[in-house]
Formats: sequence, structure tokens, C-alpha cells
Amino acid sequence: MTADSRPTLALALGDAAGIGPELAAKALADEEVQQAARFVVIGDRRLLELGAEQAGLKLEIEEDWFVERNNLDPDTVTLGEASEATGAAALDNFGAALTLCHLGGADATCFTPFNKHAMRLARPGYVDEIGFIQAVLNTEADGAEFNVLDELWNARVTSHVPLSEVAGMITTDRVLERIKLTDATMQGAGQGRPRIAVAALNPHAGDGGNFGPEDDEIIAPAVQAAQKHQINVSGPWPSDTVYLRAHKGEFDVVLSMYHDQGQIAMKLIGFDRGVTLIGGYPFWIATPAHGTAYDIAGQGTANPQATKNALLLAAKLARASGAPLAGEAARRSALEAMLDTPAAQYTN
Amino acid sequence: MTADSRPTLALALGDAAGIGPELAAKALADEEVQQAARFVVIGDRRLLELGAEQAGLKLEIEEDWFVERNNLDPDTVTLGEASEATGAAALDNFGAALTLCHLGGADATCFTPFNKHAMRLARPGYVDEIGFIQAVLNTEADGAEFNVLDELWNARVTSHVPLSEVAGMITTDRVLERIKLTDATMQGAGQGRPRIAVAALNPHAGDGGNFGPEDDEIIAPAVQAAQKHQINVSGPWPSDTVYLRAHKGEFDVVLSMYHDQGQIAMKLIGFDRGVTLIGGYPFWIATPAHGTAYDIAGQGTANPQATKNALLLAAKLARASGAPLAGEAARRSALEAMLDTPAAQYTN
Repeated sequence: MTADSRPTLALALGDAAGIGPELAAKALADEEVQQAARFVVIGDRRLLELGAEQAGLKLEIEEDWFVERNNLDPDTVTLGEASEATGAAALDNFGAALTLCHLGGADATCFTPFNKHAMRLARPGYVDEIGFIQAVLNTEADGAEFNVLDELWNARVTSHVPLSEVAGMITTDRVLERIKLTDATMQGAGQGRPRIAVAALNPHAGDGGNFGPEDDEIIAPAVQAAQKHQINVSGPWPSDTVYLRAHKGEFDVVLSMYHDQGQIAMKLIGFDRGVTLIGGYPFWIATPAHGTAYDIAGQGTANPQATKNALLLAAKLARASGAPLAGEAARRSALEAMLDTPAAQYTN
Repeated sequence: MTADSRPTLALALGDAAGIGPELAAKALADEEVQQAARFVVIGDRRLLELGAEQAGLKLEIEEDWFVERNNLDPDTVTLGEASEATGAAALDNFGAALTLCHLGGADATCFTPFNKHAMRLARPGYVDEIGFIQAVLNTEADGAEFNVLDELWNARVTSHVPLSEVAGMITTDRVLERIKLTDATMQGAGQGRPRIAVAALNPHAGDGGNFGPEDDEIIAPAVQAAQKHQINVSGPWPSDTVYLRAHKGEFDVVLSMYHDQGQIAMKLIGFDRGVTLIGGYPFWIATPAHGTAYDIAGQGTANPQATKNALLLAAKLARASGAPLAGEAARRSALEAMLDTPAAQYTN
């Protein structure tokens, strides 16, 4: 494979008080990862070096493949402790990575785990990644989050909203749009024609209307419409067995109606080994599903598999999108344009 | 153990087209079950004999320990097929068992699996067990369903209701009442002072109010009030990790806010091996969690473990209730009173 055929990924360093720096170093040193993509690492270089040291690795990253944000002195970081400083740096790095992709200098954004509490200390209005991405990219597009665990995917129609608002947000259009996006995304990830199971909203899939009308009247029509588009989709299936069926191999992906429906299942199945993927923007965004693991920070024992999976999936999706990949010139020009961006501009 | 110290359980034969007759025969022949309780079996004796034959067992049940409903000719039953006749017989048996307990002739009701479709054919308005129990016992008391899998229990505040109605049904009083019932039930089952985890309603337990106010404003006060009653309860915990934590041994029971929240988790963990327990009435009602398994009906291969667990749990709870157990005289007098009950009186 020649260097030029690889996509370019922006890798933002996440929360520095956890295992993030170590994960970044381990993943960047991995041969399979190196063959799949080139990386522009974004953060404070001293922290990446610290992570390499924790991992017992020596990393050599050329200057023009590192966006030096100079935003966090390692001496001010207390391992295992959420702070405004680590939150601000993580947000700054993430914002810069998104900007690099937005300017065409990279093909996808990846990041090591965030600590939401630290990010709130730095940016009190911070709700979730989607809201931050919207702010940085200046878009109202509602991103779609996927959970990817080995061969099993989970998508969802609603996410970080009160349970009381879920039913009102389930519309035939919205379900159909998510089925289509799920199909296109998984085909892009090389999953062939995925077998999509749509989870029901109500217990026993509404039990013929006894336990709510939405499954028959709103969700089923979306499934039927998608089938007419030659999408391999079925449902709505009772949600208390659909994940078990998918886990056993009957489906490739479940489209959940709300956050905890899918997350309860995926976390029991072992999703912390998986990848969180955000779509719905001009480029993909991927991160390991697990958290910052403050309890083992700095020990060199962190398992980088989920991070490696996140980078490999982002590379695969970037390549599969069919769009021209970011070349040398585009990367250099984007980096140049970002040179004058002050640290922490994305924080507030 | 003398015979008189054992509780008396009413065992209603469930759907006859599935594995129910075989399960009943296998469980009744089990030595541990025989030592734990005495049984009044309720149904059509020809079907129990057929079940014993399928199981390769010879059962001897004295006449006054069998309530002959004479409601289903085995020759009219097609194995593996839901029908109005099997549904009507299952309902009739269940109604008779509840009535026997209601009259003081038995201490708890157990039943082998129902097929809801068959029951609907027989009784179009049939929604779930709770509604039927209310009708037979002529009460508006809202029963509480527990799922019991080995050492892990699941309870819930709402059950067979549309998801859109769940949030409105979560009140501090209702959550507190369910915490108390859960505590009392598990202590009655010999679980000591159970560690109760209350699941949150909203994603991330409401995330400090960002994703809904109920966890902080409605559920947390119920948990605090219960703690003042010396109940070992905590929460509300984010529901996408609380079942995993309970499964790993951190809690003895999770109190779920809605049906699928708990059922998704319990079925992934393996709840089909478990027991469904209904409380909130003057006596306990228990059944295996799995279904009628039409696909293996009549083959003699059905695993009776969940049925045995249901009978053993009902026996334990009946004994632990502290109330005097049904004696010979009470049983005979109740059976006498039921003699004139026509078959299928409970069906409509």
C-alpha cells in the first residue's frame, strides 16, 4: 500500500488525567493501525510523550503531523482527577480536530476518552458530543450515534432526551431516515447488506395496541417503506428479546428507539470493548466506547483494543465514503489556516 | 419434616399444547419439590397423565389432591398449536387455583406456562395475568411482578403500559411503596436484608436535570425516604450499567421503572431459566419465566428446572409469610365449596 492511498485521520487527545495519553501512544504504535491510516495528532505533545513513556514505547511523530496546542502542562495534571484544565484541553483538541476535518485537511476525527465532568467544569453548558460538534461545525444537523461491538451494531432514533419525550419524537419519517442512514453507514463500513432489526417502542411491541399504538401505527410503516427501498430490515420486534437475537447472530444491527434500550443491552453484551461512532456530518467521528479509567491511569496496563478498533473503523469508513481523500496539499493548507487558532477557543 | 409443616400449593396446568403437562409431571416427581410443599393439582387429569407419559414418569396423585376440571380432552389438542380450547382450559385452571387460595384452601398459586394468543382466543379482553387475577379475586389491587434469576431479582414500578405513559406514572409514593414491597418480599424469601438498586428513569440518570427532572425530583426522594425506614437501598443509578453491576454481585435486586428496562437486561442475563413471581395479593403466585416452547412439545426433553424453582420459591414465601398455613380442614372445605364451579366460568 503506498502512503498516499491511506486516509488521514485527526486524532484528538482526550482527557489527560485518565488512560487517554497511553491509549493514543499504544494505538499509534500499532502496525495494523499504521497501515490503515495516517494520523494528525492534536494536543499537547508533552502529554503524548508521557503516554508513550507510560506504555513503554518510543513514538516518533514528525512536526507537520502534530498540531501542537500547547494547552496542558503535564505537571499540572493529577492522574485520576477530573479538572477544568484537562476538560478544557480535551475540548480544545476535539474542536481543533473537527476543524481540521471541516477544512478538508483530514478525513475523519478520532479521540481518546473524555471525562464529561471535567468538560462541564471547562464548559458549563456542555451536554454531549453532538451539541459540541454542532457548535464547532456551525450546523444544526442532528448526528447519529452508533455503537459497534465486534460484528454487532446498535443505532438509535433518540438519544440524550428525557424518557417522557421519547414517544413524541418517534415519527415515521425519523425512523425511516435512521434506517436508511444505518443501512448506508454499515454498507460503507463493509458490512454488505446489513440485516437491520428495528426495536419496538412499547412492551411486547405494543401487544396489538394494548400497550400503545406507536409500534403498529408509526414504526411499522417506516419499516415497510424502507423494505420498498430494498433495505433488509424487519420489525418492530419486542425489545426484550431483539438484542438477544442479534447477539446470537440473527441480525447485524438493532435500531433502538431510545438511549437506555440499546445501552442496557450493549453494555451487558460487553460494549465497553466496542466503538462509539458518530455519523450525520460530512466526516465520521469515532472513539472507544469505554471511559477514562481514572483508576488505572498512568500504570501502562490500559487495553488499547477499543481505541485501535475506533481508528480502524474510522479509516475504513473514510475510505469507503467514495469521496476523494485529503491529500498533502489539503492537509498543509488546513493546518496553515489553523495556525493562528488560539488554545481553548472551543471551550466556551 | 412432618407432612403438616409443609405449605399447600395450588398448581394450575397451563397451556396444554406446549411443554406444560410434561413440566408439571417432572416437577411434581422431584424429591426436593415434594419435601418443600404439598400440591393440589388443577386441570384435566388426562393431560397430567399424558405429561407423565411424555416425561417417562408414573405419577400417583390421590383424588382429593386433584381438582378435576374435566375441561380439555387430550385428543382435541394439537401439540404446538395455540387454540381457543387450550386457552380456555388454562384460564379455567388458573381461575380455580386462585379461588382455592382465596378460599384459604392453599397457600400459593403456581402455574405452568400460558400462551397469551390462546388465552386471547378464549377471552378476547385478556391483557395480562394481573388483570385476570384482579377479576377473579374481585380486587383493584395492582400486583407487583418480580423476576427471579438465581440470586438476582428484578422488580418494576410500571409494567404493561405504553412507554409514553411511563414517566407520568412514576411518583415518589409509588416508587417508595415498591421499594418497601421489594424489601419485604425478598426478606420473606430468605434473602436477608436485600441490597436494592433503583434504576433511573432517564438516560445518565437525568444527567443533573439535562435529560429530565424525574430522577432528581421524584425518584431520589423515594430512595431517601426508604433509607430512613432502614431499607438498604440506593439510586437512582443510570440504567445502562445498574443491571451489569447487579449481575456482577453488587446488588441483590434492581427496581426497574418500566417493563423493557428490566426485561432487556434479565433476558440477556438468562432470565428464561428464572421465575416470574407476582405479589401484592393475599398469597403469592409463581410460574417459570419461559414460555410454552411449542417447538419441543411432547418430546420429553423439556428442562423442568425453572418450574421447580417456581414451586420452591412459592413454598419458601408461603412459609415465610408468617400466616398460618392451610391445613387439612381448610383445604377440604375450600375444595367442597368449589365442587359446583362449572368449567370455564373464569374464561369470560
